[in-house]
Amino acid sequence: MDHEKRAIVLVSGGLDSATCLAIAQAEGYACYALSFDYGQRSVSELRAAERLAEAAGVAEHRTLPIDMGAIGGSALTDRAIAVPEEETEGIPVTYVPARNTVFLSYALAWAEVVEADAIFIGVNALDYSGYPDCRPEYINAFQALMDLATKAGVEGDTIELRTPLIDLTKAEIIEVGLQLGVDYSATVSCYQADEQGRACGLCDSCRLRKKGFADAGGEDPTRYRE
Amino acid sequence: MDHEKRAIVLVSGGLDSATCLAIAQAEGYACYALSFDYGQRSVSELRAAERLAEAAGVAEHRTLPIDMGAIGGSALTDRAIAVPEEETEGIPVTYVPARNTVFLSYALAWAEVVEADAIFIGVNALDYSGYPDCRPEYINAFQALMDLATKAGVEGDTIELRTPLIDLTKAEIIEVGLQLGVDYSATVSCYQADEQGRACGLCDSCRLRKKGFADAGGEDPTRYRE
Repeated sequence: MDHEKRAIVLVSGGLDSATCLAIAQAEGYACYALSFDYGQRSVSELRAAERLAEAAGVAEHRTLPIDMGAIGGSALTDRAIAVPEEETEGIPVTYVPARNTVFLSYALAWAEVVEADAIFIGVNALDYSGYPDCRPEYINAFQALMDLATKAGVEGDTIELRTPLIDLTKAEIIEVGLQLGVDYSATVSCYQADEQGRACGLCDSCRLRKKGFADAGGEDPTRYRE
Repeated sequence: MDHEKRAIVLVSGGLDSATCLAIAQAEGYACYALSFDYGQRSVSELRAAERLAEAAGVAEHRTLPIDMGAIGGSALTDRAIAVPEEETEGIPVTYVPARNTVFLSYALAWAEVVEADAIFIGVNALDYSGYPDCRPEYINAFQALMDLATKAGVEGDTIELRTPLIDLTKAEIIEVGLQLGVDYSATVSCYQADEQGRACGLCDSCRLRKKGFADAGGEDPTRYRE
């Protein structure tokens, strides 16, 4: 390693990616935080991403506008589809088609440009809400793709796809984050947070987060609407 | 097959993708043409894509604005880097980092929404200009990713990634296209075509195209600036 270690870190503004960023920094990577404005319902999530990246003192933070709404098909980008407020079977309507594939593609492009050694993404296979693109086999397939897709790959230099949260429960993620000093009050997990970043407390993402804090035995700093 | 066959077809406005679209249609697919406005130098390429999609009578044509320029790193999206006008060694500066990965990710997202059976992309491994993401091993890796990334994949329904041009020479592509009635005068290949779609005749892409028409023995309908 003849240069500083660099990592692209996907930062959504949520609990998982905030923890993931803290882990990448604790490992000594200069972090290039990447967020996406993809027509998600909750703009407060993006503001949270900005605050988190700034507080962490990242090397750079970029928010790319990407038009997932033009593709449609998800409750998170299409206001005609309601966010469910109780548990559902199978792959939920909040699934955004190919979202992680699109996100990781841009991360890969930026990784090539800044000559990053790694890409960090805070996916989680336990509390994964049934999304196909959060599973370990998906991550392995994307790593295989990265090895073939890039200049670096052709020249024998691998960019590593890192998923430090993949085997952790939500409670374990929170424990790691608290040890690393993550300010969870600055994160927004809710699929339908209001302008002030206050959570509904009812959606899938809120339920997972609540349970995580309860299991971790920590105080839940989330601001709820009621 | 209990519904009409549907395919997403990536249409750039160039010779290869025009041929690819004609092949998908000849195979009986209802075609959903997808183009990207990614800050390429040549806007006439996008106009060519519109004309081609319309002439072909596709089911739908979408042009997604995507900000590859925000990522940088290529002569095709960064005006500070010159397009070379003679042959170069290795991966050329016209390579856009992770471009096909980004394009295919969006194609995959749209394929999920319209429940497409296939995605067609006109990559070519012979005249591939040295881009890593045009090689057969890259395509195989993306197919493997698709099988794991999607709702359809989880439910055991494969979306097929089709590359009908991958083993063809430029001359063979042109021969197939002429048989299928492709109007090559409507296509733009040049990396630095002018507003009217006239080609420079000097860049890599122009050189490959010229040689293709010469080898195919067909008349070259390209409009050159001089």
